[in-house]
Amino acid sequence: MQVENRHYFDWAATALPDISLLSADYPFGNPSSPHQEGQTARDVLENARARCASILGVPAETIYFTSGGTESNCITLFSYLTRQSGGRIIASAAEHSSITENVHTLGRLGKPIGQIPIDSSGRVSTDNLSKTLKKYGDVRFAAIMTVNNEVGVVNDLAALKKILRDRDGPPIHFHSDMVQAIGKVKLDIEGWDIDSASFSAHKLGGPRGIGLLYLRKPITALYSGGGQEKNIRPGTENVAGAITLANSLEKHVQPENFNNEYADARRRWKRLLNALKNIRRCRLLPKNREADDEGFSPYIVQAAFQDIPGEVMTRALDDLGFAVSTGSACSSDSPERPVLEAMGIEDNVMLEGIRISQGWTTTDEDIDLLLDAITEVLTFL
Amino acid sequence: MQVENRHYFDWAATALPDISLLSADYPFGNPSSPHQEGQTARDVLENARARCASILGVPAETIYFTSGGTESNCITLFSYLTRQSGGRIIASAAEHSSITENVHTLGRLGKPIGQIPIDSSGRVSTDNLSKTLKKYGDVRFAAIMTVNNEVGVVNDLAALKKILRDRDGPPIHFHSDMVQAIGKVKLDIEGWDIDSASFSAHKLGGPRGIGLLYLRKPITALYSGGGQEKNIRPGTENVAGAITLANSLEKHVQPENFNNEYADARRRWKRLLNALKNIRRCRLLPKNREADDEGFSPYIVQAAFQDIPGEVMTRALDDLGFAVSTGSACSSDSPERPVLEAMGIEDNVMLEGIRISQGWTTTDEDIDLLLDAITEVLTFL
Repeated sequence: MQVENRHYFDWAATALPDISLLSADYPFGNPSSPHQEGQTARDVLENARARCASILGVPAETIYFTSGGTESNCITLFSYLTRQSGGRIIASAAEHSSITENVHTLGRLGKPIGQIPIDSSGRVSTDNLSKTLKKYGDVRFAAIMTVNNEVGVVNDLAALKKILRDRDGPPIHFHSDMVQAIGKVKLDIEGWDIDSASFSAHKLGGPRGIGLLYLRKPITALYSGGGQEKNIRPGTENVAGAITLANSLEKHVQPENFNNEYADARRRWKRLLNALKNIRRCRLLPKNREADDEGFSPYIVQAAFQDIPGEVMTRALDDLGFAVSTGSACSSDSPERPVLEAMGIEDNVMLEGIRISQGWTTTDEDIDLLLDAITEVLTFL
Repeated sequence: MQVENRHYFDWAATALPDISLLSADYPFGNPSSPHQEGQTARDVLENARARCASILGVPAETIYFTSGGTESNCITLFSYLTRQSGGRIIASAAEHSSITENVHTLGRLGKPIGQIPIDSSGRVSTDNLSKTLKKYGDVRFAAIMTVNNEVGVVNDLAALKKILRDRDGPPIHFHSDMVQAIGKVKLDIEGWDIDSASFSAHKLGGPRGIGLLYLRKPITALYSGGGQEKNIRPGTENVAGAITLANSLEKHVQPENFNNEYADARRRWKRLLNALKNIRRCRLLPKNREADDEGFSPYIVQAAFQDIPGEVMTRALDDLGFAVSTGSACSSDSPERPVLEAMGIEDNVMLEGIRISQGWTTTDEDIDLLLDAITEVLTFL
């Protein structure tokens, strides 16, 4: 994909906006108003909810519109402050900052917390989850993302849920941040028996300020207000955003569309990854990632280039017209790479990592030009 | 204002969208990304912030973009959970549910809370505030809205701040919900020495999902994540929303525009209020509200019609093509009228109250037609 001689490879930070998703016409009323303007808006909002639910294969009443993935994660986590019952909150070592930071906050507020280690691929193994449950005993909430935002590894949520379900004791709420998964890998929210999941529209070509929270059963949210979204998310409902989100899910998650896009993405990623593996100074992270491994998202790859700090490579590629990143844009101020560290990657290699992420409009030519640019940088640095 | 023979008088719930405010072109990058796409988005975001700050007459670094008024209120209130120091949180009896509900939640979580009584106009008098401070002694946070969303009364924030400032003891944080005030009454955030204030774009013709939080000094927010908005509001920044918010502030708050709109609104409201006062079965709430009293917003009026429940009047007017409400849309599920109750209005009158609110495109003809419709309803009910 090309914007004025630019090649955008940072779709994991935000997708190119797809204006075809925007609803030209939407009712302006406040869905909480009982008059016709309000009720028309209410009907359209509920229609958008039903469409989102249908595509995700879940009941409409489990879908709550939020302002985005971060807020969806926060609502779920901070509902713990409204509970009398205790129980430990654990999250994988690979979670996005909107999980890890808030788990730490809950810890500072007196809630018991803990971490689930990841393996050298960035994945939460059933074995690591079992050990973590045994170590703590009192776990009541576990957050494990579906697709990691830095290395693209896919967790086996069905198998992980089985471990949680088989544990003796009170049920464990299973939350998954699906922001990098939706439209990118196949999801089965009900089949995997997920309790809650977070989604964001802007990673799917939609606008900022709209996202989803899936909640199998209602929770008590910390923030309240006018009772909107059945008390889960207060604030006047973003009807235009909800329509756009439904549009974006239909465009990228409906099976026929998803399958085509997934196959194309995988083909392009195989082209990129195989070429990267042939570059002597390049090491994929994890090192053993194979170009056609379905255990990784075909939209994200992390690669380290020997003796070139990730920030330097990122800047050099930027100068050549290519947008890539080191890790999460949400943590770009920080030189730390906690996910890579938790994978056990050596310090020097970790700091050489860059994230390349593609989208639906990325072309083979974009990939070939990126590879040329990387080769050019490697020649001079 | 007329939409397909409809006359919209519920601008306090949400304004008619003004598509001229929308930015046709905005950078799509994630402002936290270091590459060119990200930095272009960052520059535009910071430009929008500077424009908002300039219009509000405050430094740019005091402006934080949020998803709306409710979230701005929540961020401010729940920052108290991150503090070690105690101190009571008080709020006026006339606050929006996004203040009152959350103050109650903080109370349930062990924070000392309290209420500031309002007078029969719905206003917080300096006397009531002084008495409340004396009663509790340990107050550290006071929330008093600028314009009440149900009756339109304007609080004298400068005088109230003086009471807070003159109290012996640790400083009291002064928060004001300005959602119904911005663009509707004259604001002087710095002159009044406000510590924090909340704003929403959709009450100004902008889209849902974008709002502002003014913070004279940074606070520690409860929700965290990727560090956006200097850790006050996590989540990928809504650049398009920020531009639109800046546009809407320039359109409605810049002195020349504001003064014209305010004069027009006041003239139309005088027409409406004088006519309502001449209807025998109509009583303005508060009863003594004068048509040209600058102590009330010229955009909102609450009126009760003898022997006609507010819900019935609202429905009857809706059937005739007029959108009005009873109270806040945010509480429309609840038959309770806590603000009117706190004003000391009799139970039967309270339940007869309807809220009529206008906007910039409301015309004299709309008002005359509304008055005709009210007369028609009164003839039959």
